Amino acid sequence: METELFIVGGGPAGYDAALAAARRGIKAILLEKEHLGGSCLNWGCIPTKFLLAAVAPLAEMEGQERLKVASGQYRVDLPALADRKKRHIEATRKAMAAQLEKLGVTLLRGELKMIGAVKSVVEIEGEPKTVSYKRCILATGSRPAAKPGLKADHDAVLNSGDILGLREVPESLVVIGAGFIGLELAQFFSRMGSAVTLLEVAERIAPAEDEEVSKALAQSFKRQGWAMHTGVRVASLATVDGQARVELEDGRVITAAKCLLAVGRQPNSRNLMLEMLGAEVKGAGWVHTDEHLLASPTVYAVGDVNGRTLLAHAASSQGEWAVRHFAGEETRPYEPGPIPGCMYGAPETMRVGLLEAEARAQGLEDVTVTRAQLIANPIAQAHGATGGLVKCVWSEGRLKGVTAVGHGVASLATLSTVLVGQGFTRKQCEDVVFPHPTLDEALRAALLA
Amino acid sequence: METELFIVGGGPAGYDAALAAARRGIKAILLEKEHLGGSCLNWGCIPTKFLLAAVAPLAEMEGQERLKVASGQYRVDLPALADRKKRHIEATRKAMAAQLEKLGVTLLRGELKMIGAVKSVVEIEGEPKTVSYKRCILATGSRPAAKPGLKADHDAVLNSGDILGLREVPESLVVIGAGFIGLELAQFFSRMGSAVTLLEVAERIAPAEDEEVSKALAQSFKRQGWAMHTGVRVASLATVDGQARVELEDGRVITAAKCLLAVGRQPNSRNLMLEMLGAEVKGAGWVHTDEHLLASPTVYAVGDVNGRTLLAHAASSQGEWAVRHFAGEETRPYEPGPIPGCMYGAPETMRVGLLEAEARAQGLEDVTVTRAQLIANPIAQAHGATGGLVKCVWSEGRLKGVTAVGHGVASLATLSTVLVGQGFTRKQCEDVVFPHPTLDEALRAALLA
Repeated sequence: METELFIVGGGPAGYDAALAAARRGIKAILLEKEHLGGSCLNWGCIPTKFLLAAVAPLAEMEGQERLKVASGQYRVDLPALADRKKRHIEATRKAMAAQLEKLGVTLLRGELKMIGAVKSVVEIEGEPKTVSYKRCILATGSRPAAKPGLKADHDAVLNSGDILGLREVPESLVVIGAGFIGLELAQFFSRMGSAVTLLEVAERIAPAEDEEVSKALAQSFKRQGWAMHTGVRVASLATVDGQARVELEDGRVITAAKCLLAVGRQPNSRNLMLEMLGAEVKGAGWVHTDEHLLASPTVYAVGDVNGRTLLAHAASSQGEWAVRHFAGEETRPYEPGPIPGCMYGAPETMRVGLLEAEARAQGLEDVTVTRAQLIANPIAQAHGATGGLVKCVWSEGRLKGVTAVGHGVASLATLSTVLVGQGFTRKQCEDVVFPHPTLDEALRAALLA
Repeated sequence: METELFIVGGGPAGYDAALAAARRGIKAILLEKEHLGGSCLNWGCIPTKFLLAAVAPLAEMEGQERLKVASGQYRVDLPALADRKKRHIEATRKAMAAQLEKLGVTLLRGELKMIGAVKSVVEIEGEPKTVSYKRCILATGSRPAAKPGLKADHDAVLNSGDILGLREVPESLVVIGAGFIGLELAQFFSRMGSAVTLLEVAERIAPAEDEEVSKALAQSFKRQGWAMHTGVRVASLATVDGQARVELEDGRVITAAKCLLAVGRQPNSRNLMLEMLGAEVKGAGWVHTDEHLLASPTVYAVGDVNGRTLLAHAASSQGEWAVRHFAGEETRPYEPGPIPGCMYGAPETMRVGLLEAEARAQGLEDVTVTRAQLIANPIAQAHGATGGLVKCVWSEGRLKGVTAVGHGVASLATLSTVLVGQGFTRKQCEDVVFPHPTLDEALRAALLA
């Protein structure tokens, strides 16, 4: 088979690259070994949002019950939710395939076996085939990390993919790893009734976030009844008598009906012999890319597999950019604007640009921080959810970063992305008329504090 | 009494003007005849948001029930909610008064009787006093409009202020006027169990909005079981045997437990003898202002009373601007950026900048419209609320306006305000990395459609 662009992986990076190619009349083959949509659609962002949306009424009810103005009962039918989610994902995959076909992209179902500079070997229905191309876009993504002694056995010890398939709510759930994946899933199961224990090797939960954000999250989860142990290492992990048994290095043993292993992601790059191309592979297999997202002169690596930013929208941005670069539309280095990151649920978090600690570590000039507490915001008040804050980082009078934690703050992410991307000054922020009353005014209060 | 700035009215315009004055060391007296916070805090935006937040769990539950993944019951205790709302408003007023005191603003409790160029007569505890000043900021706001034959009797025929005090849910409610005030309150009482009938003189509900927005709203409310009559005029209106009796000009009679009169607002400018200053007063009493928000050489008129934009945040923006103008910081005409407007609830609406019809009526060059349906958005899908759309208006390649209707779309308002304010091109929109998955992506889809 011959093509101009050979795209490997049909997740956000590869799929959006394929659409971008097709819209430019560039002949493209997209190879997908399992499901279109990748981790995001099938085992990540989208199914977790269905779960969190299903328990959103509970979070809203809690707020009103806290205000003592309402009471209620609400029951999620987990098997029905699992089926609904499955149908939605299948329908979306089907729509994606139809879209590719409509735009003239060839979709190959198979696996990349060996990657070459202008030709690769793929396995399709057990048969090896070769694909020739001008350029390859490697977008193979990532999967849940397994570390020595920390491995899902898919029985009582589950990874994030496994747990999304549960049809019964575990009575108790121990979550290893307090990053966003662990925290979103813990939130869902906690609201469904699981007793949650959180284990984190770092000294605080959400360790990649601003310290104040971590602290506010911990307060909120504590109020929700979670047990949280930070600064702990797992010594061993196994299913024993149908239960998850977690032994910590300090000797403590925790048992739970299920254990979720959420200790990060690792790249899907094994056995590809990328080194034969002169590509550099780091750590667990992250593919090093140059300023044009090239791993070698003819092979782009985009999305999770290059380890730059493990987020679906960063992957899409890179996939589309690689196509524009191939088409000659981009010649300068790949420099996306600020990339927002959110944790969803109740509470939520968001961040974009630099955190305070990062700004100081980078030695930016004249770093200042402004903040506002959600407790003063009328929408947070009306929803009985006044915990949290918005924090802005400035350097030399220009906005460099925003982070927030609390009720609904993920909705501040895109707005903050634009303000940081434009490097707004305080005066420019003042000139924006914010609608009243909105949660956005908490951002305004932080910007103008 | 003598001061530099004499501010009349402690609503958003006057209160924010007072804060802006105090922060600049300008001596200010603020006169308020009833409650700090004005209509917004006491009878408008804020109490309605408390009501809508109290029924938000119901809207969320409806979505999940529609997806057939959950079921529940939820009951709002209206007297408890009314008390909670009252306590919140009182606490906020107290905090506002404390803030004024802290900043050194003199708060006078009384009423303006006659306004002069450099001196006004006010009545305080029944006694007339005079206040001398350099400039006056008139920020007296507005109140529910009463039209001939359309007058609240505060028995079964209520205005928006009255209905907020109800402690029992009326079995049936007829709402006259399908603007945002009527629609937000109708949404609340509908979710609380009232049978809602909507009467609107225009040919469609939300007649000031984009036609597609009106249509989507009507569909949603119809699904919620509302009776809606558009293009109808009320001939007479009265409480008869404890019920509201509405007779239409076409002879039809509608009775309901209560009637909400929401036919707009009228300015609080009567008996002030503004004409003595040379100020021009139009229509129902709207005070004409020049490009510097001046009604006469020494009197600014800001907020609702000048009839420019009847929104709290527009009022605040004007109040603060007047102080900056007085302080010599602003010399050019008052030209705020785009001012967003939202209707809250489920569904919501938002708009900022120009609607399609406005852009065409203004004769803008090369007007194009792009749109996206919410049904393709994963967050709308997860919440089982896929009705609605986002619509963007462009002229000569620059974004001129955004409007939307559907689940949670008020959260797109500030972001849209910035994009319209900056006059973003399609390319600039493409360069913004939107977080995935978010409702904001519906805006992205519309921008890039």
